[in-house]
Amino acid sequence: MENSEQSKKSNKKEKKLRKIVVLRWGHRPQRDARLTTHVALTARALGASGFLLSDIVDKKIEETVEKVTRNWGGNFFFEMETSWKSAVRDWKAKGGIVVHLTVYGKNIQTSSVLDRIKQSKKDVLVMVGSQKVPKDFFSKEVSDFNVSIGNQPHSECAALAVFLDRFFEGKELAKGFKKAKIKVVPQQRGKRTIV
Amino acid sequence: MENSEQSKKSNKKEKKLRKIVVLRWGHRPQRDARLTTHVALTARALGASGFLLSDIVDKKIEETVEKVTRNWGGNFFFEMETSWKSAVRDWKAKGGIVVHLTVYGKNIQTSSVLDRIKQSKKDVLVMVGSQKVPKDFFSKEVSDFNVSIGNQPHSECAALAVFLDRFFEGKELAKGFKKAKIKVVPQQRGKRTIV
Repeated sequence: MENSEQSKKSNKKEKKLRKIVVLRWGHRPQRDARLTTHVALTARALGASGFLLSDIVDKKIEETVEKVTRNWGGNFFFEMETSWKSAVRDWKAKGGIVVHLTVYGKNIQTSSVLDRIKQSKKDVLVMVGSQKVPKDFFSKEVSDFNVSIGNQPHSECAALAVFLDRFFEGKELAKGFKKAKIKVVPQQRGKRTIV
Repeated sequence: MENSEQSKKSNKKEKKLRKIVVLRWGHRPQRDARLTTHVALTARALGASGFLLSDIVDKKIEETVEKVTRNWGGNFFFEMETSWKSAVRDWKAKGGIVVHLTVYGKNIQTSSVLDRIKQSKKDVLVMVGSQKVPKDFFSKEVSDFNVSIGNQPHSECAALAVFLDRFFEGKELAKGFKKAKIKVVPQQRGKRTIV
């Protein structure tokens, strides 16, 4: 698989950097297509190393995300089909921790949960659900931390964005993407890109 | 309209606080239903005062958002149908400024754009598109600031979340919602709500 090779390569390169991979569970083709795409693109744009669409295959989303990566650069990997259970097992076996974003978790603003995640100095698998998630997600065997981005219902896409922005302390938004075919030149007015 | 009365009431109460209202343009019923709902719920959960679905009516989304507000509390208002042009005109006539979130704008991380928005001390109408937005959105007549949440393509939902989190400096995630029927008690494990 080109993807997993890419991923291995970038794992090697980034060995000394903290790494975040996003796992999306519960995707329903069609119904969730656009949201899952937005979640994956948010992961990429806000500093995650890769995205795993667990337990299902959706070629269209893979295509969209990989096209963005081809055009806009970087080493972001997209994987699908792997079951969430084996993904979590593998992640933990490699020494990573698992963070489950949920409205029921410890509030990222009012608790020390983010500090504790950072202090662990470990790579982080961030799990976000679509439908109601299995009860297991909350258990010690699965999530090291259950984290809420405020305890109000909103969006896994928004939750992921705030989590990544705070985890990387904003630096993710300044970072360049290697081998980009398209680049935006930020402007106060109008659109400017370099191709 | 109950909505606009609610809105007037909350406007009076919150007169001395900075206020943000989110305008969503380009919504296509069905195709955008879930994303627009997520954008509206993100606006509510992350401290905006209200949401305007411009230029279109979508009763289903109104219903979903108002149900969340009834159950989870707060004064968040939902309006629809008003054209974006008249919404912008009215907003500016009342002394507010307009911020357009776009991948082409000034980077919120690497430029001083957020400081300048804050220093204005004015209420902010945040515009987010769905389809490709009209060129006018970038013009002086419409947007006082064009702001990017990183210059990579991702999601209006993610962009709005990061903008609100940075604008309110995280405080929005700690705030209580009045008259809530449901409240989450944040926990490290499991789900706990007070009804």
